Amino acid sequence: MSTEPPVPETSVLAVASHVVSGNVGNKIAVFVLQSMGCDVSALNTVQFSNHTGYKQWKGTRVSAQEITDLWEGLKQSYLDSYDMMLSGYVPGAAAVQAVGGIAKELRHKSEENKKPGSFFWVLDPVMGDNGRLYVADDVVPAYKSLIHYADLILPNQFEAELLSGVKITDSASLEQAIRVLHQEYGVPHVVITSVSLPLSGSSSATSTPPPCTSPTQTSRTMSVVGSTMTTSGRRPRLFRISFPVFECYFSGTGDMFAALMVVRMREAVSNFDLLEREHGDGDGDGDNGKKLGERRSWLSGDDVDAPDLPLARAAEKVLASMHEVLARTCEGMTAEMRARNREDLDEKTLHLVRSRAAELKLARNLGCLRDPAVEYRAEKL
Amino acid sequence: MSTEPPVPETSVLAVASHVVSGNVGNKIAVFVLQSMGCDVSALNTVQFSNHTGYKQWKGTRVSAQEITDLWEGLKQSYLDSYDMMLSGYVPGAAAVQAVGGIAKELRHKSEENKKPGSFFWVLDPVMGDNGRLYVADDVVPAYKSLIHYADLILPNQFEAELLSGVKITDSASLEQAIRVLHQEYGVPHVVITSVSLPLSGSSSATSTPPPCTSPTQTSRTMSVVGSTMTTSGRRPRLFRISFPVFECYFSGTGDMFAALMVVRMREAVSNFDLLEREHGDGDGDGDNGKKLGERRSWLSGDDVDAPDLPLARAAEKVLASMHEVLARTCEGMTAEMRARNREDLDEKTLHLVRSRAAELKLARNLGCLRDPAVEYRAEKL
Repeated sequence: MSTEPPVPETSVLAVASHVVSGNVGNKIAVFVLQSMGCDVSALNTVQFSNHTGYKQWKGTRVSAQEITDLWEGLKQSYLDSYDMMLSGYVPGAAAVQAVGGIAKELRHKSEENKKPGSFFWVLDPVMGDNGRLYVADDVVPAYKSLIHYADLILPNQFEAELLSGVKITDSASLEQAIRVLHQEYGVPHVVITSVSLPLSGSSSATSTPPPCTSPTQTSRTMSVVGSTMTTSGRRPRLFRISFPVFECYFSGTGDMFAALMVVRMREAVSNFDLLEREHGDGDGDGDNGKKLGERRSWLSGDDVDAPDLPLARAAEKVLASMHEVLARTCEGMTAEMRARNREDLDEKTLHLVRSRAAELKLARNLGCLRDPAVEYRAEKL
Repeated sequence: MSTEPPVPETSVLAVASHVVSGNVGNKIAVFVLQSMGCDVSALNTVQFSNHTGYKQWKGTRVSAQEITDLWEGLKQSYLDSYDMMLSGYVPGAAAVQAVGGIAKELRHKSEENKKPGSFFWVLDPVMGDNGRLYVADDVVPAYKSLIHYADLILPNQFEAELLSGVKITDSASLEQAIRVLHQEYGVPHVVITSVSLPLSGSSSATSTPPPCTSPTQTSRTMSVVGSTMTTSGRRPRLFRISFPVFECYFSGTGDMFAALMVVRMREAVSNFDLLEREHGDGDGDGDNGKKLGERRSWLSGDDVDAPDLPLARAAEKVLASMHEVLARTCEGMTAEMRARNREDLDEKTLHLVRSRAAELKLARNLGCLRDPAVEYRAEKL
């Protein structure tokens, strides 16, 4: 494993839930970011004993006022300089607005300082999945009012439908949803995680994975679909990365995906600028010769084709790490469940034991985060 | 950097404070433990914007009831199996008792299962420093009532005085304080961090380090003094490790020390058992041929001399990591302070800027944690 972090010095404000036991929300995001070399400030929006997938938990939520207070605490001590922000689960519309307020201030500061590329907000609009909303109804308009300020949003298919108002049933409606997010909301980068559609050339199916019994990798595939809008006309530049599915339900995959995207996006943009400098190609697309990392939202020039976008490079590496971590988790899970005599367990206990065994196994798999082998490549959609 | 974690699979419950920005309490302990390969449950006792050394902060404390609730939440979902527990700052006597209650339950379970070595509690009795108590008065008796259940305690010199009732002024009183902790309180392992006494052969001084201006490593030394009691008679086996001092005040060093001790103690005991097995020396000291890691409190047989104790091995590696991280932090701090025009800053602002610059630099220095070069060795005292 290389000792050199993949990114230049990067300070990140991570806002998400905290669980005492297990790996979701900030519990996984903070470790991912730190182990990749980021200096992380972690604002925890809840402290629960465990994630809600166990179907029982204890703990408390942080109020919108407490979020604002913590932010005021940071500001009064000059601790409010961040290169990037990552926001995940936030409890309730008022708290979502409080978190949005922080991002708006950081955005505003970067513009006031005339350094539009010095702040980048990755927003995971956690609202629901598979057709089911698991937040209050008023959280949806709260996110709709905020995504305009985000640089990259990471909705799943259901959340992309909620935000865009477009029901995604095929490639055309998928593209339409992303077009709405770019053009009407002005979101520069979008990645829709876990698209399960019969996209052209893909063998994916629409069913939800069954609960884990003996998790195995199957021939079923899913896709991540991403796009960076063009600088002129905000047109989509769509790419897809397909990957094989583990037949098992894991919690925290979205949070891990988001944290890895923060790091790999920063890395891809740095690498792009390094290459540009080597080739003396500083002014390829008329943005005043500014480096990509200095432009607002790190928006690639229109000469860059979809599969060559830094966003696509980043997503490839993210999926490579995800695949390796999920494979290790599956191995461990299979061993743990085999060691148990399942017939002795009632249904509730079995669910709890299985939830525990399905926690992402990260701490002993640092190499999967830092140096994954990229197997699945972005294709133009 | 090696990809192999230094410890076998180890689940740790870490109970301490959380800060959004900076590196103290659980914010540093959790990362240290995870990056060394431990599966960490993190129960945060406060969420503050920043540590109190800044002299201003915002945020909230967790009540004793909330700590107990989170523990109940873990238990009801079978998430209460831990190999080790680390406890640091806990706000108030009631909360200290709540945390102690968790440790007692885990201790009790290990005894009920007839696996006395399967649980190990590292207790950092955070109460004060340099003669000043920074918790409420009733926290002192709360800790006094609990240390009997701990396996290893990590007081600084002042806290060791508070717990033992012995004023430490020279080698004799230092030994007496540790003797009291072993014999009256039955604490098996003690490490007193940051002893600044004119110990025999050491050139240390008693003054507190001055506030940082340009931090440099000087010829001034300090010592860590540790002891594992004998199995018969609970007599001290004292060792000392001396190390050069950086002339600067850092926050979070105690928390980092404690987290590293958890990992390195586990590693040292594992290594001891591996060596014993290689030499076929399974029953060297009459403890029923049990491996060291299976004995209550991992208590070495009386044939093991002070500098050969696993506790001494562990402390050597911990100090090696500490020294490397502090050196990197100093380098960064010097550069940051030079980049500032200090004359423009009023005293309060300068203190805030300096506090920020003195935050331990960890995320880009993983190698210092995982593979430090051991320079300072334990000597018998």
